[in-house]
Amino acid sequence: MPRARVPATAQELAAAIGAELVGPQDAWITGAAPLDSAGDGDLAYLADRRYRPRLKATEASAVILGPEVLQDCPCAALVSERPETAWARALDRLFPVRELIPGIHHTAVLGSEVQVDPEAQVDAQAVIGAQTRIDERAWIGPGTVVGPGCRIGPDCRIGPNATLHEATEVGARCRIEPGAVLGGRGFGLASEEGHPREIPQVGRVVLEEDVEIGAGSTVDRGALEETRVGRGTKIDNLVQIGHNCRIGPDCIISGQAGLSGSVELGEGCVLAGQSGVAGHIRIAPGTTVTAKAGVTADIGEAGIYSGFPHQPHSEWRRDVAALRQIRHLRARLEALEQTMAPSREGGS
Amino acid sequence: MPRARVPATAQELAAAIGAELVGPQDAWITGAAPLDSAGDGDLAYLADRRYRPRLKATEASAVILGPEVLQDCPCAALVSERPETAWARALDRLFPVRELIPGIHHTAVLGSEVQVDPEAQVDAQAVIGAQTRIDERAWIGPGTVVGPGCRIGPDCRIGPNATLHEATEVGARCRIEPGAVLGGRGFGLASEEGHPREIPQVGRVVLEEDVEIGAGSTVDRGALEETRVGRGTKIDNLVQIGHNCRIGPDCIISGQAGLSGSVELGEGCVLAGQSGVAGHIRIAPGTTVTAKAGVTADIGEAGIYSGFPHQPHSEWRRDVAALRQIRHLRARLEALEQTMAPSREGGS
Amino acid sequence: MPRARVPATAQELAAAIGAELVGPQDAWITGAAPLDSAGDGDLAYLADRRYRPRLKATEASAVILGPEVLQDCPCAALVSERPETAWARALDRLFPVRELIPGIHHTAVLGSEVQVDPEAQVDAQAVIGAQTRIDERAWIGPGTVVGPGCRIGPDCRIGPNATLHEATEVGARCRIEPGAVLGGRGFGLASEEGHPREIPQVGRVVLEEDVEIGAGSTVDRGALEETRVGRGTKIDNLVQIGHNCRIGPDCIISGQAGLSGSVELGEGCVLAGQSGVAGHIRIAPGTTVTAKAGVTADIGEAGIYSGFPHQPHSEWRRDVAALRQIRHLRARLEALEQTMAPSREGGS
Repeated sequence: MPRARVPATAQELAAAIGAELVGPQDAWITGAAPLDSAGDGDLAYLADRRYRPRLKATEASAVILGPEVLQDCPCAALVSERPETAWARALDRLFPVRELIPGIHHTAVLGSEVQVDPEAQVDAQAVIGAQTRIDERAWIGPGTVVGPGCRIGPDCRIGPNATLHEATEVGARCRIEPGAVLGGRGFGLASEEGHPREIPQVGRVVLEEDVEIGAGSTVDRGALEETRVGRGTKIDNLVQIGHNCRIGPDCIISGQAGLSGSVELGEGCVLAGQSGVAGHIRIAPGTTVTAKAGVTADIGEAGIYSGFPHQPHSEWRRDVAALRQIRHLRARLEALEQTMAPSREGGS
Repeated sequence: MPRARVPATAQELAAAIGAELVGPQDAWITGAAPLDSAGDGDLAYLADRRYRPRLKATEASAVILGPEVLQDCPCAALVSERPETAWARALDRLFPVRELIPGIHHTAVLGSEVQVDPEAQVDAQAVIGAQTRIDERAWIGPGTVVGPGCRIGPDCRIGPNATLHEATEVGARCRIEPGAVLGGRGFGLASEEGHPREIPQVGRVVLEEDVEIGAGSTVDRGALEETRVGRGTKIDNLVQIGHNCRIGPDCIISGQAGLSGSVELGEGCVLAGQSGVAGHIRIAPGTTVTAKAGVTADIGEAGIYSGFPHQPHSEWRRDVAALRQIRHLRARLEALEQTMAPSREGGS
Repeated sequence: MPRARVPATAQELAAAIGAELVGPQDAWITGAAPLDSAGDGDLAYLADRRYRPRLKATEASAVILGPEVLQDCPCAALVSERPETAWARALDRLFPVRELIPGIHHTAVLGSEVQVDPEAQVDAQAVIGAQTRIDERAWIGPGTVVGPGCRIGPDCRIGPNATLHEATEVGARCRIEPGAVLGGRGFGLASEEGHPREIPQVGRVVLEEDVEIGAGSTVDRGALEETRVGRGTKIDNLVQIGHNCRIGPDCIISGQAGLSGSVELGEGCVLAGQSGVAGHIRIAPGTTVTAKAGVTADIGEAGIYSGFPHQPHSEWRRDVAALRQIRHLRARLEALEQTMAPSREGGS
């Protein structure tokens, strides 16, 4: 969904985001930019104390920051104990998601008994299957295909060009980015007379509330029951979620990570980019799996895990360092071998 | 394609799947579920002897199982020497793929001289290029784009929102999941005055019979001739197949695996998730490549290969284990060095 | 875009590609094929001197080659100092991209104030947002969705079924393959009361001239400003480019590679398949990152880098080799330990 641009005074902004304003109340904020490229009218944000020199030099009209750096701010300061959250709120205030144009585009195709809330928008070239229900203020983007028997919660944003299989259920305020596929066939195969043969996949996908599915990501439907993504879980682009997985709530899964079938990911787990999890694995709540790692057995204890097969991060770092020292080890061994050789001779 | 639900008696089911029925013939089967969540009316399946305790406790109305566990079955037993195949057949019987609604949706767009069999279905918003032929009982899902000069075999299921480039040939009973792309431009580049420059890719993609291409997967067209996926090969989601590859028959390629150009994969190979194969590699029939492995040279002898660069699986396991023992090796070396130091002194 | 087939004489072809013709001028060239499968009427190409025996045996009607192998050519020879470039040009000559059918398909949907050049083509079921401008000879493929406020340069080829978010800018002669997504939401998250929360992403994507984006690849829009892909950069399939990245010019990024947010890739870098780059990394111009490598820190000096965490390629090779020798190291250590044990005893 496109966003509009709605300027505000520093005072209005402070009120909207719950920050304390120090400095000119009537500073007029029309945009947002990084500290070092911000100019007149821009709001900026100090993400990291290391960037303090940039704060002193900024030409922004206002900056969101924590109280500990207030004295370095050359312009209106919006002081917050949680500057990152304040920043997110400020962007929502300055660049609100465009209003929907409620209704059903004349090129959209709807099956029988579809229910579309009068406040929802079904955009051009969308296709909605029979008996699907679309709740208030949901947006079905252009070219998106929603299968029959789906339920789309209020305030969802789906598409463009996304695909939802039959009977998918999407909770309130979910965001499904372009090209994502929910409910594709799980990769369940049997062997029949020596050839691979599909096992029918008759389950579905359920997203709880506030879930994000990134562009081009795929979440397979359950084999018999559900693949479920818990409340608040955010999934990046080109991620694969296998059939029967149970994810979250509040997990973060980065780009190109892959979960095989029947993985259970506890609350608040973080999977970094290009990581993978083997089938039927359970991962304890609060676990972090680092980039490119591969989880091959249950993780019962929260922590940071790396490598393939996965191991505690500190051990992985130690082993990587050791590997890069192997040649020294070999050299020392050879030195020892040479020392030994004459000494044995001398001893004879 | 959505599936319907068609109940059956245990006796009807046994006949349909070629199993022997032991127990009540008139048990009424209306659904399917895992052993431990199945209830009245459900069919379940004992996938692994480890789950035998679940069999004893199941509340399913019927269970598919092997003869060796029959005595533990508390309900109607459908006994098969190949329970997995029987299970797949039973699901096909209970949840048949919905009947097509033959014909061409009024919003579909067809080029000139397109031939659509009267038993085929071209769904809403689909686009079919000139001179393409679509055979009996094929389904072209909503939003799917089939280029000109394609040939779609009988009983195929393609889409929604899939894309097939010009001249793609798809054999009988193939399934192409949502968002998949067949015939994208191969990544052939030349250098022209120091800049990368596209080499035109004028070939095409051929899928033989019974091939599955997962959601969001991409199969590039040949540079000059064909990229060919052999009969019965099953490809999972977000897999990349480069130009000129020759795959299969009967291969299994799991999620996010990637094949560079001109790879030849023999019959019955298995590539696990996130594995990769470098360009122009030949892999012997019956080879398994494990998760995240990278094949960098021809594999002439079937076996299980792991790691990057790939090596026989047993060697890879040994090396991984050794790496995780390096610190002990170092400690032993240091002990030896200390032992030697005084001994040398003593010897002088 | 489909390609046509336009035969030529060897003489015409030589003139078109800037090669010197040796042999029959009137050889009639109707197609192209590899050296070993080419037949009468085919043009072939000697890519590598190792294939010289195939040149001698070829049944092609003409071959593009370098002067050093001319004496082995059994047919018309098109001699070039840069045979690869000549080959690319010859294919463009023999298989020209089909002429557009200028105009807007009656099923396409256009927002208000859209400008489509009379020489451009907007294909079936496409959706173009308000105030977007599409320049001369650009092709918007079937099912492609271009958001509002975009600018599509001349001679672009976009889609089918691609998605461009609001305000995307695409330079001249770009090619965006099926299913690609430009301008998806960057994966910017804050923590709000213990839950992940989206940080609004209000930037956009800019592609400079001659960029290629592969099938199913995703390029996220900038958080505040731009994600920019430089002139001439070629990106393969299923690649993820995070928000705020600055790529190129003239980079080559292979299939399933992934760049986290705010990566800066200098001119002429090459990222091989399934490689990854962590967030905020800068990579020097001319750097090559090999397959499956993971870059975790800035690379200031051009070179070839491998492994995860990345290291110079020669060191990575050495360490991989060393790891595969660890068991020998251990055996030697044990031998030494046993030698020591009696010697110490003997010394007491």
